[in-house]
Amino acid sequence: MKKHNFGAGPCILPQSVLAAAAAAIKDFNGIGLSVLEISHRTKDWEAVMDECRALWKELLNIPDGYQVLFLGGGASMQFMQVPYNLLNKKAAYLDTGVWANKAAKEAKLFGEVEIVASSKDKNYTYIPKGYTISKDADYFHITTNNTIYGSEIHEDMDSPINLVADMSSDIMSRPVDVSKYALIYGGAQKNVGPAGVTFVIVREDILGKVDRTLPSMMDYRIHAKEGSMYNTPPVISIFIMKETLKWLKSIGGVPEIQKRNIAKAELLYDEIDRNKMFVGTVNTEDRSLMNICFVMAEGYGDKEEAFMEFAKKAGMVGIKGHRSVGGFRASTYNALPIESVQAMVDCMKEFEKQNA
Amino acid sequence: MKKHNFGAGPCILPQSVLAAAAAAIKDFNGIGLSVLEISHRTKDWEAVMDECRALWKELLNIPDGYQVLFLGGGASMQFMQVPYNLLNKKAAYLDTGVWANKAAKEAKLFGEVEIVASSKDKNYTYIPKGYTISKDADYFHITTNNTIYGSEIHEDMDSPINLVADMSSDIMSRPVDVSKYALIYGGAQKNVGPAGVTFVIVREDILGKVDRTLPSMMDYRIHAKEGSMYNTPPVISIFIMKETLKWLKSIGGVPEIQKRNIAKAELLYDEIDRNKMFVGTVNTEDRSLMNICFVMAEGYGDKEEAFMEFAKKAGMVGIKGHRSVGGFRASTYNALPIESVQAMVDCMKEFEKQNA
Repeated sequence: MKKHNFGAGPCILPQSVLAAAAAAIKDFNGIGLSVLEISHRTKDWEAVMDECRALWKELLNIPDGYQVLFLGGGASMQFMQVPYNLLNKKAAYLDTGVWANKAAKEAKLFGEVEIVASSKDKNYTYIPKGYTISKDADYFHITTNNTIYGSEIHEDMDSPINLVADMSSDIMSRPVDVSKYALIYGGAQKNVGPAGVTFVIVREDILGKVDRTLPSMMDYRIHAKEGSMYNTPPVISIFIMKETLKWLKSIGGVPEIQKRNIAKAELLYDEIDRNKMFVGTVNTEDRSLMNICFVMAEGYGDKEEAFMEFAKKAGMVGIKGHRSVGGFRASTYNALPIESVQAMVDCMKEFEKQNA
Repeated sequence: MKKHNFGAGPCILPQSVLAAAAAAIKDFNGIGLSVLEISHRTKDWEAVMDECRALWKELLNIPDGYQVLFLGGGASMQFMQVPYNLLNKKAAYLDTGVWANKAAKEAKLFGEVEIVASSKDKNYTYIPKGYTISKDADYFHITTNNTIYGSEIHEDMDSPINLVADMSSDIMSRPVDVSKYALIYGGAQKNVGPAGVTFVIVREDILGKVDRTLPSMMDYRIHAKEGSMYNTPPVISIFIMKETLKWLKSIGGVPEIQKRNIAKAELLYDEIDRNKMFVGTVNTEDRSLMNICFVMAEGYGDKEEAFMEFAKKAGMVGIKGHRSVGGFRASTYNALPIESVQAMVDCMKEFEKQNA
């Protein structure tokens, strides 16, 4: 039976990427060695780094003056690395969920942190609006997509100060006006590859402004200067990221994937709104196109486990909601085909027919 | 033609490990999903983490009271993470080369650093002896194998203070008395896997003694408590590390690989010492069993490029010496078969016959 992988991350990757990864592990570029056992100081490997950087720049239309870095440690490492590089006195954070909170918590070790707005009062089911960003802060940090709660900031906002965005779970899902951001970061393991590599897109002119001395591994300038090879990079994860971006380009790039993502999300949200047995958890206008959260509607709470079993039998994988939301979460990242969403919708319709 | 991969890292891995990695990327455990696209919060993945930790403990005979962590960022990240966790006032470092130096440099941001001894005077061609370790330092840091220069500390030393060792390039190459160390760390990409994951073996009772507040990602205690899954781990690199350790166990574990490593190193060093055209660069008793450095003997300096070409044609890969040493470096890590060393020796003999 075909599996429909709605996992929140590490998540589904295109089949062609998996095939390319397996092939390169057996023999890389036909050189008789595995991609796992070549030096990162070889021309063959440097070509991979160059191609990967070029794909990032092309697909996201990254302007001059920005560096694209590939680092280890995960987005959680960026929660400390961002303030290490940018926080001199005060930083502003938007509290839209667990990950935004974690980012703010780490920043507090490096300076004052102001939470400009929070949606905690309603368990993060909406994106705060109408707040004021303090102009005296060094930067304003947002989490564009909240994987756990299924809310998303859909527009590139205008910020009076340097805008820093954790885009771990919606990078490359829609066109982004990179020029509105001073720094964008995220783990690769949703839309751009496997776990093990973190991307950082940073405008060069914001660096070198803090008073502290930076450890080498924290210093974005060092990683930029060394082409993300100050130390041995996470080779296989970068290789697979490059393959994932190649796939994205081959299907028409970010504008095309945005169309597909909208179609997938509409298909599922429409069913959630139509179906008597389910209800969405997030404020309609803030609904994420990447993580679609829903619970049993009033009166059907006792059917949750039955639907989980029903969906599993139909091949759905990774649809259990995070414990802080409950219910279900269907992650519809770039690589998830619309056929999987249709299978989920069919599943919900059939369950309603049998149980409502 | 068969390639003989003497690369210094990322380096040769066993063929069975490459096959297992490629297979798991296509279908992991027969579950119909790739190891790249499963959640790290699944039982299937947790079993990999558990098995990997258990293999570390078994193969290195790690006593109770130690934690084994798998982190991202590389050994270079440990250059800052070690002092973050352990350096309160002063740390002692042994300067045996570039990497030891880099480690000491990062530590200076966190406290006083005393270089207890250095072999810089002779371009790091020996391991300093007869130095005194300051008892008032928080720890003593050594680099057990110097990948660039080809020198190695062959014995587990007695240190009056907490002993911290970077074993990036000789971990699992010989039995180690872990109880003599407070902390052992290293990148996986030589003897225990691919690039992208770093191991840390740490005695629990040394943690939590510094005055500073640690960022979460720096805190070994958090990673230990969360079983190295405080954040999404570098999944594929850990999977391949686990497979590499399984292979090591299958051939007889660390005592067996030590025998093989000694045999390989003796074979090559004997030829270097016998061959009129080559000369080893390192003090005999400090010669590394992992990175064997040699240059053209006096009078044959003009033949260096010719030998490089000759060796390449015979299938040798990655034998160019580091620019700070010159000549040749043959890395003979665990996965390199003795047949490759024999091929190298044959190559040297033949070259001597044709040129001496």
